[in-house]
Amino acid sequence: MEDRRLSPGGQRLLEVATEVFYAEGIRATGVDTLVERAGVSKPTLYAQFGSKENLVAAVLARRSAARQAALSAYLAGSDVRGGQAVLAVFDWLAEGHGREGFRGCPFTNAAVELPDPGHPARAVISAYKSWLRGTLATLAGQAGLARPEEVGDALLLLIDGANARVVVDDDRTAMLRARAAAARLLGAAGS
Amino acid sequence: MEDRRLSPGGQRLLEVATEVFYAEGIRATGVDTLVERAGVSKPTLYAQFGSKENLVAAVLARRSAARQAALSAYLAGSDVRGGQAVLAVFDWLAEGHGREGFRGCPFTNAAVELPDPGHPARAVISAYKSWLRGTLATLAGQAGLARPEEVGDALLLLIDGANARVVVDDDRTAMLRARAAAARLLGAAGS
Repeated sequence: MEDRRLSPGGQRLLEVATEVFYAEGIRATGVDTLVERAGVSKPTLYAQFGSKENLVAAVLARRSAARQAALSAYLAGSDVRGGQAVLAVFDWLAEGHGREGFRGCPFTNAAVELPDPGHPARAVISAYKSWLRGTLATLAGQAGLARPEEVGDALLLLIDGANARVVVDDDRTAMLRARAAAARLLGAAGS
Repeated sequence: MEDRRLSPGGQRLLEVATEVFYAEGIRATGVDTLVERAGVSKPTLYAQFGSKENLVAAVLARRSAARQAALSAYLAGSDVRGGQAVLAVFDWLAEGHGREGFRGCPFTNAAVELPDPGHPARAVISAYKSWLRGTLATLAGQAGLARPEEVGDALLLLIDGANARVVVDDDRTAMLRARAAAARLLGAAGS
């Protein structure tokens, strides 16, 4: 999906859909609204993406690629090591939580709205979370922590818990509290 | 909302909406579908609940009351104390995660679908999470743990993280892994 060459109209549609699906919801946003806001015709949507379902998948695939590149750049730009590198992932996420319009993880939120396991976006969502858990496990392993896979999994629970706090109460400091809990868990995991 | 005397048709509507909103989504379920499945007329819905929004709030208020009663009964029926009583909340939640059709926390899922902070269901959702966090904090305090409010908050992060794992990957053992992480956190918090 993310390799497809898009027309300028298709690209605009992708950008508009990225914003609107996140801010207003996927189910709540009809195809008519999308094409109107992007200033393209409905046939453009179908010619470029085939279906609304595929457009949702394309939006999330693009977000996922951007997130992965952004975290790599963040970690490369910070000179922390060991357990501090694990916690730097939380710092990076906390920055996102502070941004205007943030309303939780776009991937988890999409999964809530798309219960059909056959929806083309589901594999993209699942891959994003696997990547994040794997990154945390790799950093935990590099920090010399015991059972890094288990640590990565537990840290992902804290992260998604913080995302839920934003969704429920617009609680923008939850990721910092998740970081504090993560630091206690890393201490308990031993180095 | 939960004190309202409902007609038999209103009661049926409440029960049908509880199942369908959870299984298929709130936005995805129109008023026409609900009244058809409940075998009532559309005027019955409006006479009994006023609006779809209020019906959503009534469904969640009823769920919340049932959950609170169920956890009280579960804890009263188990003879655990101290840190084990805190972990018993995870055992109770893990039972729910094992059930057919479970697809994550109905309250968080509803919040994802209802971004408008003025929606009447939002206060019900927020109160449910406050109750759960407060219960965890109370049990942590009774277990003699330091900073029980902070512990309750961290445990809620793990719980909602486990709910997200179900939403994303239908991962039904996530709550047991959250329990294991909680046990490590409780150990780190000291008794």
